[in-house]
Formats: sequence, structure tokens, C-alpha cells
Amino acid sequence: MEKNAIVLLSGGLDSATITGLLRRDGYRIHALSFDYGQRHQQELHYARLVARQCGASSHRIFPMDLAAFGGSALTDASLAVPQGGVSAGIPITYVPARNTVFLALALALAEVLEVPEIYIGVNSQDYSGYPDCRPEFIAAFNELAQVATRAGIEGKGPQIRAPLQNLSKAEIIALGLELGVDYGLTRSCYQLDADGKSCGRCDSCLLRLAGFQALGKTDPAPYQTQP
Amino acid sequence: MEKNAIVLLSGGLDSATITGLLRRDGYRIHALSFDYGQRHQQELHYARLVARQCGASSHRIFPMDLAAFGGSALTDASLAVPQGGVSAGIPITYVPARNTVFLALALALAEVLEVPEIYIGVNSQDYSGYPDCRPEFIAAFNELAQVATRAGIEGKGPQIRAPLQNLSKAEIIALGLELGVDYGLTRSCYQLDADGKSCGRCDSCLLRLAGFQALGKTDPAPYQTQP
Repeated sequence: MEKNAIVLLSGGLDSATITGLLRRDGYRIHALSFDYGQRHQQELHYARLVARQCGASSHRIFPMDLAAFGGSALTDASLAVPQGGVSAGIPITYVPARNTVFLALALALAEVLEVPEIYIGVNSQDYSGYPDCRPEFIAAFNELAQVATRAGIEGKGPQIRAPLQNLSKAEIIALGLELGVDYGLTRSCYQLDADGKSCGRCDSCLLRLAGFQALGKTDPAPYQTQP
Repeated sequence: MEKNAIVLLSGGLDSATITGLLRRDGYRIHALSFDYGQRHQQELHYARLVARQCGASSHRIFPMDLAAFGGSALTDASLAVPQGGVSAGIPITYVPARNTVFLALALALAEVLEVPEIYIGVNSQDYSGYPDCRPEFIAAFNELAQVATRAGIEGKGPQIRAPLQNLSKAEIIALGLELGVDYGLTRSCYQLDADGKSCGRCDSCLLRLAGFQALGKTDPAPYQTQP
């Protein structure tokens, strides 16, 4: 029987790895991305490349102006993106309730398409500062999905899956390389330049580069200054 | 100390009643409405009137194309709105995961504004067919709000309040009349005409009219055919 899954696809490394996993496991892939007023809006271009490379059967880009609410360096041009070191606490790049909003919309799509599984690339080890990347968040949303939906009432509410939850960035990259994920099509940088080159200095670049370095590999994506 | 609340405001009778409650209780009111591709988009006009009458300190109308996902008579023009009787089961007017999406966005706004309470006008007695109007849905979303947010990590996540949960439509109307809510500014109809007159025949009109009738009152909102 055909297996269907929705995957939240950002254009970054984590969601590309999950999409590679779904491809290997023979899923029919319904990719969902968000054009939410992010400053690094180019990521949607990379999301499209990943969806195509992984043979997704559909890819929706949902427009939504989360920037209207403000409060994050990722959507608010007046707040600076931090550079040069991973800091403690909740980062200013946290977009309030972003994963709750993304999963809520994925749940709506799952109801309409009758898809039983929703995949999200959260990863608590690297991003322990984000409240909505923690296992307790995923568990609570999964509970919600069982009571919030028609499918749930019928005892088959969509399951929320976060298979990268407990992996380090290096472990995620190792998995993706094994799966044949082309990381050259992905970007993680918060401030890509017009040529699609990563800065190599923001928190997200530093985590990604450290992951490749730990494996003795070179990141195939281009950087403004070769690291 | 000033009390702040976000209220999900639809232009209908239930959310107007809640807004009247918040006004009586001295809240600073932050109203949030959604322009989500609903066929009865005029409801936003009535939401504005209610926000103004209740002295809301802000009213945001968030645009979002839920109709792109399809699957509901309320957003999909190819599906007929049922008339002439309240039917069993989940109505075709159910918009998949709508209250999950609305509350997720209210949660995002609550994080940014640091507002501790979110009010929603769900009411399980009249709409037992909608999965996301049930007490177990509200309880599960409240649990989620405590783990999904920065405020929750600090032990003060936004509380989700549904004060109309167990009231009948007649009880809601009785409460609103006591609070001085002007129901002439509200509409509940799924197919308002261009003059803002309700059809008097859809499920939502029938429930509303029965509520007024049970109290021996006349609905001050206009109907295409006077009931």
C-alpha cells in the first residue's frame, strides 16, 4: 500500500535529510514550505530544488505574513542577526510560535489530503534554546492532533514525526550523505548573499560547518569566504 | 494592574459576547481576525464594528489563504452550504484544523505582545460536530501553549479560555444582552447577501434564530425574509 507523508521543507539541511529518508522509505512526499516574511526568503528557492531532487509528488509554498507580528531577528529587519558564537538562552532568531503555526497548517493539509504522517526536522540537541524544537513540544502537538481533527475522532489522527530529534548535526549530515542527499542544494544561513553564498559567521552557519568538520567532510554549499 | 487579553473575533454572535465579557471585566482587548478565504468574507466588516463598539485597543486582520487547501464548504465555492436543518456528524462547513491554525497564530501574537490570556468563542453544545470546538481540544491546546512558548518555559504560558464552552446559544445571547452587546452589529450567516442580510435558512442562522426565540427576543440583525 502506498505510504503518504507531509514534510515541512525549509531549504535547510535538516528538512532535506528527512526528505531523503522519506524517499528511501518509499513515501509519496507532499512538501510544505512557508513564505512567512523571513529575511532569508531565498531559502524557498532551495526548498524547491530539494523537493524536485527527492521526487516530491507535490510542493506547496504557503504565504503568510508572520513578520506583521514582529519579535524576531528572522522576520524583523530592525533586529540584528547574532554572529560569531552560539549563545545561551532563547536566541533572538526565535520566531514566536513558528513551529506551532507550521504544524497547525500541516495538520489542516493532512486533514484535506487524508495523509496520516507529518514530518518535521526539529532537532533539540543543536537548538535547545528554541522552546518549539523540544521533544515535549512534539509530544504535546501530537496529542493535540488526535483531538483537533476529524481523523483523530475516528482514531487515526495524523502522527507528528521528528526523526532527527536526538541527533547531533554531524549525525544528521552522516545520515543524509548515506541517503544521497545533495547538501549543495541546501542553505542554512540567516543572511545569504544575492549569489546564494552563506556568510559562514551566523549561529546557523557555525553549527552546520562544525557538523561537516566533525565528519572530516567539506560542505558542498558555497560560502562568501571559504571556511 | 492592567489585564490584557487576545480575543479571536469573527463578526459572529459568540465572539462578540466574549468581547463584551472582556470589556465588562476591564481588559485591554487585542482583537484578532482572519481573512482566510472564507466565502462569507463580509464577516470581517462586522468584526470591525464589534471591535470598535467594545473599545478594543487593537484589531488585527491576518490574511491567510486556507482556501488553497480546500475541503470545506466555507472556503470552497464548489461545495454547497447545507440548508434547512441541523445535520448529524461533522458538517461540511468544517474548515480542517481551523481553530488549531487560529489559536497557533494567536499564540504567536501572545508571545510577541506578552499577553497572558487568549479567548476563543467555541461552544460545544451547539456545534458538537466540529472536532476543534470540544473541551478536549481546548485542554490539549492549552497544554501545548505551555511547552510551545518562551513564556511557557518561564512558567507563564498563555492560558486558552473558552468561557462559552458549556452554554447553549440561548444562554450565550442572554449573557450578551445583559452585557449590552449589540447583536445588530454581528452576523452568523454562511451566505450573507450584498446588503448584509442573513439567509435565515443555513444551519448557523437556524441555531441563532432558535436562540433568540427561546428567550422570546427578536434578533436585531436583518434577514432576507423576516423570520
